[in-house]
Amino acid sequence: MTRKEDARFVRGRGTYVDDVRLPGTLHAAVLRSPLAHARITAIDTRAAEAHPKVRVVITGAVLADRGLAWMPTLSGDVQAVLATDKVRFQGQEVAFVIADDPYSARDALALVDVDYDPLPPVVDARTALDPDAPVIRDDREGRRDNHIFDWEAGDAAATDRVFAGAAVVVAQDVLYPRVHPAPLETCAVIADHDVVTGKLTVWATTQAPHAHRTLLATITGIPEHRIRVVSPDVGGGFGNKVPIYPAYVCAVAGSMLTGRPVKWTEDRSENLMATTFARDYHMHGEIASTVDGKILALRVRVLADHGAFNGTAQPSKYPAGFFHIVTGSYDLEAAHCSVTGVYTNKAPGGVAYACSFRVAEASFLVERLVDLLALELDVDPAELRMRNLLRPEQFPYTCSTGWEYDSGDYPRALALLLETAGYRELRAEQARRRELGEHLGIGLSFFTEAVGAGPRKHMDIVGLGMADGAELRVHPTGKAVLRISVQSQGQGHETTFAQIVAHELGIGPDDVDVVHGDTDATPFGLGTYGSRSTPVSGAAASMAARKVRERARIVASAMLEVSPDDLEWSPGRWSVRGDPTAGKSITEIAAAAHSDLDLPDGVEGQLDASCVYNPPNLTFPFGAYLCVVEVDPGTGQVVVRRFVAVDDCGVRINPSIVEGQVHGGLADGIGVALMELIAFDPDGNHLGGSFMDYLLPTAVDCPSWELAETVTPSPHHPLGAKGIGECATVGSPAAVVNAVMDALRPFGVRHADMPLTPAAVWRAIQGRPLRGDLAID
Amino acid sequence: MTRKEDARFVRGRGTYVDDVRLPGTLHAAVLRSPLAHARITAIDTRAAEAHPKVRVVITGAVLADRGLAWMPTLSGDVQAVLATDKVRFQGQEVAFVIADDPYSARDALALVDVDYDPLPPVVDARTALDPDAPVIRDDREGRRDNHIFDWEAGDAAATDRVFAGAAVVVAQDVLYPRVHPAPLETCAVIADHDVVTGKLTVWATTQAPHAHRTLLATITGIPEHRIRVVSPDVGGGFGNKVPIYPAYVCAVAGSMLTGRPVKWTEDRSENLMATTFARDYHMHGEIASTVDGKILALRVRVLADHGAFNGTAQPSKYPAGFFHIVTGSYDLEAAHCSVTGVYTNKAPGGVAYACSFRVAEASFLVERLVDLLALELDVDPAELRMRNLLRPEQFPYTCSTGWEYDSGDYPRALALLLETAGYRELRAEQARRRELGEHLGIGLSFFTEAVGAGPRKHMDIVGLGMADGAELRVHPTGKAVLRISVQSQGQGHETTFAQIVAHELGIGPDDVDVVHGDTDATPFGLGTYGSRSTPVSGAAASMAARKVRERARIVASAMLEVSPDDLEWSPGRWSVRGDPTAGKSITEIAAAAHSDLDLPDGVEGQLDASCVYNPPNLTFPFGAYLCVVEVDPGTGQVVVRRFVAVDDCGVRINPSIVEGQVHGGLADGIGVALMELIAFDPDGNHLGGSFMDYLLPTAVDCPSWELAETVTPSPHHPLGAKGIGECATVGSPAAVVNAVMDALRPFGVRHADMPLTPAAVWRAIQGRPLRGDLAID
Repeated sequence: MTRKEDARFVRGRGTYVDDVRLPGTLHAAVLRSPLAHARITAIDTRAAEAHPKVRVVITGAVLADRGLAWMPTLSGDVQAVLATDKVRFQGQEVAFVIADDPYSARDALALVDVDYDPLPPVVDARTALDPDAPVIRDDREGRRDNHIFDWEAGDAAATDRVFAGAAVVVAQDVLYPRVHPAPLETCAVIADHDVVTGKLTVWATTQAPHAHRTLLATITGIPEHRIRVVSPDVGGGFGNKVPIYPAYVCAVAGSMLTGRPVKWTEDRSENLMATTFARDYHMHGEIASTVDGKILALRVRVLADHGAFNGTAQPSKYPAGFFHIVTGSYDLEAAHCSVTGVYTNKAPGGVAYACSFRVAEASFLVERLVDLLALELDVDPAELRMRNLLRPEQFPYTCSTGWEYDSGDYPRALALLLETAGYRELRAEQARRRELGEHLGIGLSFFTEAVGAGPRKHMDIVGLGMADGAELRVHPTGKAVLRISVQSQGQGHETTFAQIVAHELGIGPDDVDVVHGDTDATPFGLGTYGSRSTPVSGAAASMAARKVRERARIVASAMLEVSPDDLEWSPGRWSVRGDPTAGKSITEIAAAAHSDLDLPDGVEGQLDASCVYNPPNLTFPFGAYLCVVEVDPGTGQVVVRRFVAVDDCGVRINPSIVEGQVHGGLADGIGVALMELIAFDPDGNHLGGSFMDYLLPTAVDCPSWELAETVTPSPHHPLGAKGIGECATVGSPAAVVNAVMDALRPFGVRHADMPLTPAAVWRAIQGRPLRGDLAID
Repeated sequence: MTRKEDARFVRGRGTYVDDVRLPGTLHAAVLRSPLAHARITAIDTRAAEAHPKVRVVITGAVLADRGLAWMPTLSGDVQAVLATDKVRFQGQEVAFVIADDPYSARDALALVDVDYDPLPPVVDARTALDPDAPVIRDDREGRRDNHIFDWEAGDAAATDRVFAGAAVVVAQDVLYPRVHPAPLETCAVIADHDVVTGKLTVWATTQAPHAHRTLLATITGIPEHRIRVVSPDVGGGFGNKVPIYPAYVCAVAGSMLTGRPVKWTEDRSENLMATTFARDYHMHGEIASTVDGKILALRVRVLADHGAFNGTAQPSKYPAGFFHIVTGSYDLEAAHCSVTGVYTNKAPGGVAYACSFRVAEASFLVERLVDLLALELDVDPAELRMRNLLRPEQFPYTCSTGWEYDSGDYPRALALLLETAGYRELRAEQARRRELGEHLGIGLSFFTEAVGAGPRKHMDIVGLGMADGAELRVHPTGKAVLRISVQSQGQGHETTFAQIVAHELGIGPDDVDVVHGDTDATPFGLGTYGSRSTPVSGAAASMAARKVRERARIVASAMLEVSPDDLEWSPGRWSVRGDPTAGKSITEIAAAAHSDLDLPDGVEGQLDASCVYNPPNLTFPFGAYLCVVEVDPGTGQVVVRRFVAVDDCGVRINPSIVEGQVHGGLADGIGVALMELIAFDPDGNHLGGSFMDYLLPTAVDCPSWELAETVTPSPHHPLGAKGIGECATVGSPAAVVNAVMDALRPFGVRHADMPLTPAAVWRAIQGRPLRGDLAID
């Protein structure tokens, strides 16, 4: 089935926030700090206010008068809405100018005069905890350093014991550098406060409208039931659109001050410079094995760079996200990992960018370590993986850091990958071409994802649990409307969710419309991220539809004057057991449920039903990837020749959408592995303010994807489905990097950090590797 | 508590359909028939189409090509959307012109050339069944007369037997003339069909958005889940806004033809001339009693004028509505009534105008008969009523026509009325002033209303049952939003329903917002009419809130780690039984229900709940009214000096709103009794095309209302509430007319039909009464 929403998109009839035009709208622009760290000594707004088209200039002082200068973040930190005391990263919001048109607002930014007293910045996270490091967050009482948290999982003592007795230990520093979600649509907001009704309507391009509503209520003091957040069509999210940004709060304040709608649309530079980044994990990993390659244990230490505000979507119980999953897909005796989070003078980081909360970092590390171990043992990396993968009979499997994987048949997926790729022939080709001086590299990765946030016991964000609601309305003519808490940023919810309901009710997917992205229209839920739509909201939709089916059974029993127990379900129809001609279609039942049919006492009419689904566990999709690259050692240029991906996300509701998600994630992995980097100079100046500097992969950089699949249903999901959105992003970077390292083996290169740009590869070959977090050194 | 919505209304910030401005909107005007009955021989639209600003001219032929020329009505009849074969009343819709602006659309009407071949009209309903009467509805196959239905209730034979043996029988012809609901806001619609998504959005000023959605789906073939009907602020309904009007269907067709929103706003003349009328009941009543005034039986025959299409909101099971209630508030041995409905060449009638389906007509008749009986027996009419009223111990009481009244203490209400009015002193004053040649009249009425449509078993409209849904969402911060199927036309739902939820949850009414009037946002229900909002939807809201309370109990038990059985409710709080300090407020519980709190297996998170309420019976509010008039026999001028009203609508949720409803209904009754009349000349020309001709009462015509109340809760409603919206409209005309007749007693006037205009009163005094359905004779 093709995507229902595409009729709208391909005809240019999507509605993004910038397409929303309200009468009387004012337009805003943000004045940003040019410095990474500086004290503000004065702000003079008089010249800007004198601009004939400027309505209001909002500064931190204006907000402070209303208690709005600081706002809570999704991670339990606070963030300056507009800087009052200091600026803490380049691009930080300092003033918000509201004018009659966007051009005047931009022009007037130059008229705001800010005096800065520069301070030394912390740019390299590894110096953040130095005793003489400048204290970035002196806004927080008693704070004397840049430490945010320490977190650990696994049994340190047991892990140390295994390592002490292990025959082989391989260690490596691995950086997962700072990258950016870079959605096609930048951030945007319109705030419209009605002074008469007290109602605040916020159109925002967000992945989490209900969380925004609750947070806006908390921040502004406007009662939550008077706030409506609408997230219309969203042009990509990837985690970038989970947080509330300072300009959103400014727009609300601006609308309250002016009595007019206030619109703000970010430009590309602002998005790349100031909205949440991802990754930035400095990891040290060690892997222990027997001489014959039985992996025994893993030990990991991480320094996590969270930027100036710990502002983003980390589950507050787990400051390092789902880093537990660093044990990957292998049967270990023990593991221990620890993560230390620090502040630096960079934009708020730590966002769960298209990977469920640090699974990308964890998966990349373990897959690099396995390849390094294979190198050390001189074993084929496919063979080493096959030897150590979890076996199907071990599921449900509790890993050494305590997480329970729901289901999987890992060896089958790897075997299918090797067969699909023609692994043996590939290795033979590689050997032949190496003889010819050609540098073919073959890289493997095997990943386990943890998606579908999440079980109550596991997590919450700013005190909000992770249950999601679904409401299914069935009209008198049998047409249905499903209202869900999650909304689409391109994932095709209008199609997938219609299929779920259609499947459960035995009606056509076109007979079901899906409503999302509007808090006034939908039940509460935590939004779309971490591949949770199908695992959580999909389950809620399925179970709501099953409730409708059970209500329909009661109605049918009244229509047919038989006991409900004597009815049996076939798609779209309740029939009398043993007499299939005596039955009623769901359409007939819907009409009767809205009619004067006499129902038993206590049975409510109509067919609508709802469900709040609280998943008992995460779902654990997995996959095996293989990448073939060619490297030109003269230029360092890497070309991806093939990419073979075997994904197992349980039952696939819409295979075409699943494949689309995989395609996107694979391209994303190629970008992260080979070109993407948010870099800073030593003064904290941001070096990637446009797509000329921050490179994203295009179709030219990608091979024709070769996809295969296995299907291991999740045992605890009503449809057996797992999430798929981020799998390829998690699994692909290691496959690409492993392939490049494999290609560089003749040069004695053991490891180089991403992104493997031509310069980075060339420098690695020369034995003078680049530091991966800097574009220049 | 004052009305929450008034902040919006008094500041001019209400949003009516005409306030909705969509980009690219086209504007429409309706060409109407100048004749009451004529064959259409040709329609030439070329000149209109040549108008530079005209986009489309829609005729019946254009609609017929799409199967839209006729539409079903709410009473199971069909109605011409645009006339194709004949016009059947003056003002009937013939063409629909769509232009760039409303002025051009109006101008172009004159350019549409229609050839009519006049036919004799049926104007007087009493001639409709004559053998030689023209057949109006020759569109309906095989139809050879103007008969619509015959309906009866009660036991004819038993009634005849009682009458045959009765000592006293009084009979009277009573006309309840044709009147108009005359809402302040006339009808209006905007239809916006999106060719890409297939979605149709209709903004319409309607009392029944969900029924409109289902009907529009049936009429247009657009699937119901792709239709959204929005009824924003509505400036009065009174039954006028229940039906779908032809222009609404034309606007939909016009939007589909042009790809643009099409707006149509009716003017006052169109509203008075062509939208649904009310009443028009030619009644013959007989009442039987003993010599000492024990009323024994009632016998009624009615000829009902339904106009050219039986187009309006009659419950389809009961073509004569709730006329059963003609037995009124009295303890009878037997009763029989029969109603015959006929077509005439007038706009569709039969609307349930501010009286639950013919209760106004029934109540007026019986109260006139009781006064005539008092005259005949020379008994005080208060005394005669007190002698015959149902006694409290008789409830629940099944009347002779089969309806079960739920509760009441009628003698108490009458006693309170007489005491409040100072009845004895009034009669003394009347006697004194009669001596002085002054004509004071004192009129009484006692009514029983049947409201809260309705029980499934009793009724349905176009196959739709009468259950209404309510959905209550409770946000993480404990603020609540109630979504209801009924919507306000001025009744204050945003206040009353917030109070219901606030009462059940022990929170403040300001912590509850009410959403209504938008089918995309609200559960299914049959809409606001027949005083059903509080009896039906109010019950649904109350029960949804009780479900929330029970869900909160489970959450509180998990928070407090005690059994739910050990918790007890006090307003806003679940506490441990015997330890009131150990408890959780509903706000704390709401936060926890959205958090990571561990709930028992099978318990869903959050607190939202919904209810579909299907009332077991109607509710039966009642009241006793007294009116004092002065009549100037020289001019026939009637001045209402006092009006005392005792209403019992069970438990009052917002006394101020109840009083407002009573005030409006009393004014309405004065208008109906003294000035309102939709009159026609013998050719079927409409004589009341503006408020200069169709007179409505103003504050100048009304005394300062004197209200009192008794409270007899409905035993089957969760809050004990009954409907109040139409009580005063039902009860007041008889009190006014009885007062005028009382004043005219010295002139030997026994009865005169409404409206008792100065001319009518003067003519009655002269012994040459006007025929009540004609303004001139």
